[in-house]
Amino acid sequence: MTRQLLVHLIFSRRSYLCVGLDTERSKIPPHLLRFEDPVFEFNKQIIDATRDLCVAYKPNLAFYEALGADGWRSLEKTRQYIGNEHFTIADAKRGDIGNTSGLYARAFFEQLDFDAVTVAPYMGSDSVKPFLAYPGKWVILLALTSNTGSADFQMTPQENNQPLFVKVIEKACTWATPDQLMFVVGATHPESFAAVRQAAPDHFLLAPGVGAQGGDLESLSRSGLNADCGMLVNASRSILYAGNGEDFAEKARQEALAIQQQMDRLLNMR
Amino acid sequence: MTRQLLVHLIFSRRSYLCVGLDTERSKIPPHLLRFEDPVFEFNKQIIDATRDLCVAYKPNLAFYEALGADGWRSLEKTRQYIGNEHFTIADAKRGDIGNTSGLYARAFFEQLDFDAVTVAPYMGSDSVKPFLAYPGKWVILLALTSNTGSADFQMTPQENNQPLFVKVIEKACTWATPDQLMFVVGATHPESFAAVRQAAPDHFLLAPGVGAQGGDLESLSRSGLNADCGMLVNASRSILYAGNGEDFAEKARQEALAIQQQMDRLLNMR
Repeated sequence: MTRQLLVHLIFSRRSYLCVGLDTERSKIPPHLLRFEDPVFEFNKQIIDATRDLCVAYKPNLAFYEALGADGWRSLEKTRQYIGNEHFTIADAKRGDIGNTSGLYARAFFEQLDFDAVTVAPYMGSDSVKPFLAYPGKWVILLALTSNTGSADFQMTPQENNQPLFVKVIEKACTWATPDQLMFVVGATHPESFAAVRQAAPDHFLLAPGVGAQGGDLESLSRSGLNADCGMLVNASRSILYAGNGEDFAEKARQEALAIQQQMDRLLNMR
Repeated sequence: MTRQLLVHLIFSRRSYLCVGLDTERSKIPPHLLRFEDPVFEFNKQIIDATRDLCVAYKPNLAFYEALGADGWRSLEKTRQYIGNEHFTIADAKRGDIGNTSGLYARAFFEQLDFDAVTVAPYMGSDSVKPFLAYPGKWVILLALTSNTGSADFQMTPQENNQPLFVKVIEKACTWATPDQLMFVVGATHPESFAAVRQAAPDHFLLAPGVGAQGGDLESLSRSGLNADCGMLVNASRSILYAGNGEDFAEKARQEALAIQQQMDRLLNMR
């Protein structure tokens, strides 16, 4: 998906919501367990309930790999079911030596046809570049993640006193344009969005951590939004598990709708 | 597998060789393509040809994920076929927020029953610790990788002038003992093994990059070996693709044997 189309979807749906499809089999409402593939059935109903309220879906690979080959099939079906009217992100946090990263890129871009993959920066340029070899496909590079462990290495000062995550952003900006590269910046770090925007004024930022992890949509949007919106804000558990009964999809929709309405206001206030 | 058993295997086989099962379908000898699962058949014959010469096998997940659900099944069968007389490493380079890393740990330790997983350090402590919650299972943390991109972030000085990879090693040593934690240190950086050994004198090091990537076994062993051996040296392509005919397994064995014989000498010279 091109940046132009993504921006078009955001302003026509008045939403920069990404729904994280982090589906745990143990949390699926009991009435779905009679289906042959409960994970896919759950995802299908969540997608149907939120399609018009979000612009992106982001399955985290860990939830599917924990189910082995069956999980991989649920993921394939989920990706197909989403279709082409949403930006699709394989939240895989991969990264390996060049030729091996190329195989991951093939898996996520060719075999599964995702628009974007999250990539870990630790192994440097040749671990990231194979993902950039696909026109129209995106790398979303981890910069400042939403978890407490982000303090261990990402925030420590480098030689010029910049935290590592700023160095990662600056270096990666030399590898790709804002048409192919986004950064993960956790919604739990609203105080850091100004530094991120200074290093990457035009790039899209993917901000996980709203909802169950406690990130505040309003404060991070105020410092993160740019002329093209420039943000995708992800919520997973708070939407997926808003309910656990037969009406779980309706509950999920209500949760997504509340976020979308807030996003509509925030887009107006830019 | 306990450290004690691993050390026992090393000294009884006179080898610290890890065979990287980075099996590419396009490089499999043509006569194997008539099998229902050529990837598994290839791995099976490589394993049969090298069992007595190595102490570890390390499939890199990218090669299996590139084949989707089928690849996952080839991986499951390969893991089963290896059995329990070798240290098994899922080279996955995973790492995610705590609850999600826990799912990866479940996939690799419970579902696939690997002894160890390679983990990327960028996301910090809570991304690593769920892998340490399994007694007898190991984390092999990326410290200094074998690729050129290792210069981008891993080698840059931190506030106290230490390179990032030393900081990663020092911090991780506070999370786990040498009975559960190893470090990846690329064989292409023999000059850095002294600094690594200073920070982690007792830990095992997994050194990829011998063979196709050009690392020199002798020089890295001289600075890396410790009283318990303390090293696993990985070779992948140079063994797997030593031949491409009906005798590919015999060619692979010759290559592995040459490495094992060199290791035998190096163990004597400690």
